[in-house]
Amino acid sequence: MKKSVFRNRLTRLRKRLAETSIDTAWILQPENRRYLSGFQAEDGQLNESSGSLLISQRAAILITDSRYTTEAQKEARDFQVITLKKEFEESLPPLLRRLATKTLGFEEESLSWGLHRRIDRSIKRTSRPVKLMPLKGEVDKMRVVKESSEIDAMEASAHLMSKILEEVITGLKPGQKERDIAWKIEGMAREAGAEGVAFPPIVASGPHSALPHAVPTDRKLRSREPIILDVGLKLEGYCCDMTRTIFLGAPVRTFNRIYRTVRQAQLAALEKILPGIESTYPDSIARGLIKESGFGEYFGHSLGHGVGLATHENPRLGPRKPETLREGMVVTVEPGIYIPGQGGVRLEEMVVIERDGPRILTKEPHFYEF
Amino acid sequence: MKKSVFRNRLTRLRKRLAETSIDTAWILQPENRRYLSGFQAEDGQLNESSGSLLISQRAAILITDSRYTTEAQKEARDFQVITLKKEFEESLPPLLRRLATKTLGFEEESLSWGLHRRIDRSIKRTSRPVKLMPLKGEVDKMRVVKESSEIDAMEASAHLMSKILEEVITGLKPGQKERDIAWKIEGMAREAGAEGVAFPPIVASGPHSALPHAVPTDRKLRSREPIILDVGLKLEGYCCDMTRTIFLGAPVRTFNRIYRTVRQAQLAALEKILPGIESTYPDSIARGLIKESGFGEYFGHSLGHGVGLATHENPRLGPRKPETLREGMVVTVEPGIYIPGQGGVRLEEMVVIERDGPRILTKEPHFYEF
Repeated sequence: MKKSVFRNRLTRLRKRLAETSIDTAWILQPENRRYLSGFQAEDGQLNESSGSLLISQRAAILITDSRYTTEAQKEARDFQVITLKKEFEESLPPLLRRLATKTLGFEEESLSWGLHRRIDRSIKRTSRPVKLMPLKGEVDKMRVVKESSEIDAMEASAHLMSKILEEVITGLKPGQKERDIAWKIEGMAREAGAEGVAFPPIVASGPHSALPHAVPTDRKLRSREPIILDVGLKLEGYCCDMTRTIFLGAPVRTFNRIYRTVRQAQLAALEKILPGIESTYPDSIARGLIKESGFGEYFGHSLGHGVGLATHENPRLGPRKPETLREGMVVTVEPGIYIPGQGGVRLEEMVVIERDGPRILTKEPHFYEF
Repeated sequence: MKKSVFRNRLTRLRKRLAETSIDTAWILQPENRRYLSGFQAEDGQLNESSGSLLISQRAAILITDSRYTTEAQKEARDFQVITLKKEFEESLPPLLRRLATKTLGFEEESLSWGLHRRIDRSIKRTSRPVKLMPLKGEVDKMRVVKESSEIDAMEASAHLMSKILEEVITGLKPGQKERDIAWKIEGMAREAGAEGVAFPPIVASGPHSALPHAVPTDRKLRSREPIILDVGLKLEGYCCDMTRTIFLGAPVRTFNRIYRTVRQAQLAALEKILPGIESTYPDSIARGLIKESGFGEYFGHSLGHGVGLATHENPRLGPRKPETLREGMVVTVEPGIYIPGQGGVRLEEMVVIERDGPRILTKEPHFYEF
């Protein structure tokens, strides 16, 4: 990413903040942190932050600890890097004083109740009062519509994944283990220059394919049963997400019908993905078609979700919480039918919403057109 | 783990709760969830929980969504599995009514401020008032002292890692890339039956070894420079953590002295690891010795940390927050000296604290005794 990309984002955030009562934003959500600053470090464990940002109309500060100082200085060029020597809640009040902060906006879905309380208490002990207010997803909202450089990165990410997946699928044979295939995909992604997988690959065969969230096991692939491969990688921070279902040999009869239904539902939903449309509409189209085919009770999850620096982000393409689709959003379209104990079929594309409809970033092949 | 292990833990937690004003504990921290229930799923992204537990004196409920129902029922035998159909904050109040909950204890470091607020609001809309109270680490406290079955699992985890690391180190040659070595370690861990690495392996050579948190790069190993390998894997959920620093050929003079100092600091600290000792004491011994040798400013991090279902857990062996070491705790002892721009040395063992001192779970070899 060019330097100017991050500077533009800072400017955009500052404009948004100027319209609120928040004068300083405190950013600790890892993808938001990277989006605004370029700082690439991920967080260790759930409770181990590698840093956070303080952004006011004048200042841009990246607070980190000594483990990350060097990387932070190199990557976050528009930010002043401050290395913490004490607990966060002790270090924050003097910084807020320096920024003349009156109202601090925090990311309410990423800040624990415990840390919020410690900060609230430490601020109250100081002489200058600071008000704490939820930031209500200001940065998440910026990320929903992708910039052209982001779409380029996601296209590269999706193309690389598609190429790897095609090669893997071509080499599948009965007797191979789910776990070994998943591991091979992970290795190929790394060797091809990805930062890693976007999520642990799902390779689910036979009855396992009926579990939308199956973890690869030592089960061996068999002929004629459904095999779901749901995979994604990260390139320059950007995720992709795609799913194919294949059969070694002709699918057994029921799954022939199920596959055709899922594919038709996917194509019908894709036709409805347009700027200005409600995000619930494509889901209702796919769900209606699956219901008409008699499989309604076997499609439990949503049609899709936004993708970007995170594998799952806004918008959500489900039956609830409608929001308007916009040009430049990147979403998945992934209907599925899962028959418990028998197996399932899921097909997933990642698309960017353009003026005239979706452009599919994940690539062929599809393996069956019944 | 045997079934009875989880039942005993439930009993212990209920005894602890009986001494507080909390009648129902809500557990959402992933390792605590696994510790109490046996449910193995990890959380997806930071904001994507795979489930949580509600535990009262009579009831034990695992709340999850349809992606995990099957696994949850298989793994969490002592729990009633409930599959969510609505948002969590809508589903919780009726469950609390069923449990006749008056005071709900939540994990304040794992619950976001946002979800806390949504739950608080939805509870207030119902007729029966429920008080929300922080649980103050009740389950974390249980996990600090390991049961014998846990120590067995950690020993197996550490032995496997030691064996792999020895094999990797034996094969190191100048010209190999940090990234390839890290990837090889990850592959060997998986192939040997580990659930995966406990954290991305650190392979840091030359000047990179001066960064305690170095991410492996395309840098090629050279003779005589320090190479830090900091690695861990997960076996049956249990992590191990170990570090060796090696040189291909004789180390340059300064690092000869640095290595000896770090090793002496480690051995001196190990001697002080005993039940009843303050957790700050071994750190002060290692730190004092490094300071005397003139490298005081180059040892920035703590001496060590607890290990278990998480790579980093209590107790912390640092200069602050003293707590009493107890038999059955598992901790790392990992002093280091890092000269910016030149390189660093860190040596790390994982030990279980026994009556007469530490038993080292990570295995030889150490490569140098100057």
